[in-house]
Amino acid sequence: MPDVKFFILFCASLFLNLFFFSYHFLSTPLPPPRRPRPPGGGLTWTRRAAEEAEAVAAVSCSGHGRAYIDGVSARGHPVCECNTCYAGADCSLLKSNCAADADSGDPLFLEPYWMRHSAKSAVVVSGWHRMSYLTNNGFISVELERHIRALHRAVGNAVEEDKFIVFGSGCTQLINALVYALSPDNATTPASVVATAPYYPLYKAQTNLFDGREYEWKGITSKWINSSVVSTKNFIEFVTSPNNPDGLLHKSVLGVKSVIYDHAYYWPHFSAIPAPADEDVMLFSGSKTSGHASSRFGWALIKDEKVYDKVVQYMKVNTMGVSRDTQLRVLKLIKVILGEMGGGGDIFEFGYKALKNRWRKLNEIVSWSNRFSLQQIDPQYCTYFSKMRDPSPAYAWVKCEFEEDVDCAKVLKEAGIISRRGTLFEASSRYTRLSLIKTEDDFDLLLRKMVAVVSENGVSSI
Amino acid sequence: MPDVKFFILFCASLFLNLFFFSYHFLSTPLPPPRRPRPPGGGLTWTRRAAEEAEAVAAVSCSGHGRAYIDGVSARGHPVCECNTCYAGADCSLLKSNCAADADSGDPLFLEPYWMRHSAKSAVVVSGWHRMSYLTNNGFISVELERHIRALHRAVGNAVEEDKFIVFGSGCTQLINALVYALSPDNATTPASVVATAPYYPLYKAQTNLFDGREYEWKGITSKWINSSVVSTKNFIEFVTSPNNPDGLLHKSVLGVKSVIYDHAYYWPHFSAIPAPADEDVMLFSGSKTSGHASSRFGWALIKDEKVYDKVVQYMKVNTMGVSRDTQLRVLKLIKVILGEMGGGGDIFEFGYKALKNRWRKLNEIVSWSNRFSLQQIDPQYCTYFSKMRDPSPAYAWVKCEFEEDVDCAKVLKEAGIISRRGTLFEASSRYTRLSLIKTEDDFDLLLRKMVAVVSENGVSSI
Repeated sequence: MPDVKFFILFCASLFLNLFFFSYHFLSTPLPPPRRPRPPGGGLTWTRRAAEEAEAVAAVSCSGHGRAYIDGVSARGHPVCECNTCYAGADCSLLKSNCAADADSGDPLFLEPYWMRHSAKSAVVVSGWHRMSYLTNNGFISVELERHIRALHRAVGNAVEEDKFIVFGSGCTQLINALVYALSPDNATTPASVVATAPYYPLYKAQTNLFDGREYEWKGITSKWINSSVVSTKNFIEFVTSPNNPDGLLHKSVLGVKSVIYDHAYYWPHFSAIPAPADEDVMLFSGSKTSGHASSRFGWALIKDEKVYDKVVQYMKVNTMGVSRDTQLRVLKLIKVILGEMGGGGDIFEFGYKALKNRWRKLNEIVSWSNRFSLQQIDPQYCTYFSKMRDPSPAYAWVKCEFEEDVDCAKVLKEAGIISRRGTLFEASSRYTRLSLIKTEDDFDLLLRKMVAVVSENGVSSI
Repeated sequence: MPDVKFFILFCASLFLNLFFFSYHFLSTPLPPPRRPRPPGGGLTWTRRAAEEAEAVAAVSCSGHGRAYIDGVSARGHPVCECNTCYAGADCSLLKSNCAADADSGDPLFLEPYWMRHSAKSAVVVSGWHRMSYLTNNGFISVELERHIRALHRAVGNAVEEDKFIVFGSGCTQLINALVYALSPDNATTPASVVATAPYYPLYKAQTNLFDGREYEWKGITSKWINSSVVSTKNFIEFVTSPNNPDGLLHKSVLGVKSVIYDHAYYWPHFSAIPAPADEDVMLFSGSKTSGHASSRFGWALIKDEKVYDKVVQYMKVNTMGVSRDTQLRVLKLIKVILGEMGGGGDIFEFGYKALKNRWRKLNEIVSWSNRFSLQQIDPQYCTYFSKMRDPSPAYAWVKCEFEEDVDCAKVLKEAGIISRRGTLFEASSRYTRLSLIKTEDDFDLLLRKMVAVVSENGVSSI
């Protein structure tokens, strides 16, 4: 008996050994003792800024607003800044009788994209980051230029290889810089600056504001086509393609030498990309590429070296280049765009889907009556998506069809919708522009108001 | 025997049991899975950016350069960007025969200040930070405006209470904005824009570049004083105080209504503050306040609402305001300045000491011979420091005293010193400007070259 007991004990001991042995050598190894991830937990001088940013980002604003680290504080904590028509400490209250604001081209439809990609797109600016007037490339970040060129190649929307690049505080600043650069130095008559209606109002506003002796705003191209009296040799023509307000692709009408192609909207979220643009002077806007209107960043691709030199000189004298803080941030954003392109986080896919849906919904509502019509944009083959794509314009160019509705912006205003009146684009007051690129809240409210105005006026009152 | 063998086996098995048991349960326990420290280690979306920033800041550049997160990379890591005259992967090599560059007003003398205050001055910009064109205060951050006003009150260098504030991309952008705003709207003759020599060359360069029909560059004030032919009613006078290049405090010479006071250097590191400035139109520069030339940030204090409205309109049409990324960063910097003021980390005390020492050293060397002379600045009572303070100007305004040295910039150039020639300031070529606000490396090299040129030419060659 004792032998049997002993044998059982021995077996138990062997079994235990087997268990320990297999546990120790065969089980999934425990992770090695975690050395504080060298930079991670060991953060030093960035910790405070990181904690501050996370604390502010964690403030709940009910999905209808957000707190910013430079926001106005209440008791030391930044408060929610609510979307239009929302109020309350946490933006949860929808104001009654609040007009749907579809006026500005504020590209907040891309805000959710950046919230989803917050870890990759954040950037720490140290107090001593690039304090000098100059980088090792004048006013321009070498890396940012390199990444912008890579972006154009990856998207296929512009030929950059044989062009110079200049940065501006928004493509806004580059408008006059290019007018200046394309104007003759010592002309007896100033250059005539023109655009085709409906056109982006800032071309005229800026040309008139600066009112330089070397150029002059001369209105819309239709006045000058086939003009037998005036030579168009000394003309500077703005061509916006896709056009703001109507999203159509355009070419020069006058066929003059000096054409400024504004391609701010020539990106796959707004437009089909049939082929890379390859004009001598092209403008692009960070605001419409990544959605960061506030950063005031844009760039020009310029073929001719003399024109480029004049623009560089203008930028130097006007503002000594573009904020390097902005260039740092834009670099990070473009890195994310490039890194996510073609995958599940493709910003152009994201933006295209959002705007396509908005366009489809608005068209459906408008089709319920014959009071309004929208511009016609056909599906078109897009080299970026390698397929036919539906329209997804940044703006709806609305026409009031009832004979008595001569002031379309006013008609919409009375229906609680703020639009941008057609006359600002030098078009008929029968037209008005609705922005489709603002927040989801703005668009939802716009739709609701449109449903109401279309339902009320189902058929022509005439 | 078999029993003995068996017993030995059993003992061995038991021993092994004991070993496994003690190893498993009694050895130093592995650290428990680390729960991230609530604020610190618990960082989520900011961690990657913070780690990246710290890794780049840790790159060693021998104290003669620094790596930036948007710098050009070698094998994925940003490389050192070296101070002038330094080279090598870690900036440890001093180039031989390298000229001392004392040309630009690059305020890098404040870089060590921000390196010392890196934890407080860092800021995290999220990908979704303020994407909109508008803040809740137009283009202007409410908090930044509030802090700028607080800074003026704390320093006592300007009366801000009854003034409007406009931000610009550097005070550079505001120069023409103010010329525009002070020019008549519909004058039969354009406003005459003037300054007193020696003056900051950009006033002339910018006025001529924009070449607006409402104003015209009309040279130096001395041409117009006591002019019996021309009324100075329609004049716009630039007054720079402290003056660039010579650091002297100035008042309007013509006594006209429209005066633009450029107070970029009216801060305690550069100048005594005898009393708060209280003119109708005043310019300040972030570049010269905190040392961040690259951020392109400046502001104007404006008393008259109509002038203010015109400047706001100009800013809207020129660039749609100043980058909000920049405004965020500048807000953080000003918060640090305000928080440290009066204590051991006072930026003005830091800057004053640095520049006072540089000025003293340069004066001593210049005094060794009679070949050069510098502008005379007397000690003056400063309300900020509540005491008499020694001069600490941003620039040395050098005069070549030898009769044959008619081109002073050329004389220095031959001695290996790059200066800014007097004629650019519309002064005699006998004068040239040396910047004293660049890096310590730049200043050290400047001193060395000055010692050489002064020693070689101890007495007049005439």
